[in-house]
Amino acid sequence: MHPFLADCRARLAFDLLSHTWNAVVLWALRDGPGRPVELRQQIGGISSKVLNETLRRLQFNGLVDRRAHPGSPPRVEYELTALGRTLLAPIDAFGAWAYEHGDEVMAAQDAARGEADQP
Amino acid sequence: MHPFLADCRARLAFDLLSHTWNAVVLWALRDGPGRPVELRQQIGGISSKVLNETLRRLQFNGLVDRRAHPGSPPRVEYELTALGRTLLAPIDAFGAWAYEHGDEVMAAQDAARGEADQP
Repeated sequence: MHPFLADCRARLAFDLLSHTWNAVVLWALRDGPGRPVELRQQIGGISSKVLNETLRRLQFNGLVDRRAHPGSPPRVEYELTALGRTLLAPIDAFGAWAYEHGDEVMAAQDAARGEADQP
Repeated sequence: MHPFLADCRARLAFDLLSHTWNAVVLWALRDGPGRPVELRQQIGGISSKVLNETLRRLQFNGLVDRRAHPGSPPRVEYELTALGRTLLAPIDAFGAWAYEHGDEVMAAQDAARGEADQP
């Protein structure tokens, strides 16, 4: 049993997840380093600005490393740190949950909306 | 492999988590039904207003049921639905991760702040 209600480490974990894009970008890096332009293509629906903010936040939290390769133009890549890699399994657990139960949540939302429409 | 980057069910799961309190309140209900006043005591640091908003959001998503027992005054309890219960394992995976790696994240944050202070 993890006493996480009163544990600031657990709050921290949920704060990490409270930025929706954090988990998505970590997941997109699971197979190896990626350049921002590749990540945007892979993820879809994320702006350059939001991707950069997300990468900076993940870097700040020690989950992602930034590597600049010299050249003209210089090439910047991001990759998971060892710490970031440890988050893949819990993220996958949520992905699997969503895959299995997402339809039920959407059905519940539809039902709740239907009730709200009743006179 | 869950193709969750392009899957709206997975986005939905992360949106659920993007409200920090959702996971905390679900977790607080894991051992059985609870009245709002009990939940507030158990969780700590959550206002009545935020708890009520969270419970309503969880109810809307089919994760929590509201039961009103007649009496004077009437007693209101909340409990996990079968669907809500399926989220406990993934939440626990994150709690366990936080318990194991939370200190590393905080150390990374301190280091990043230290670098930012360098001239």
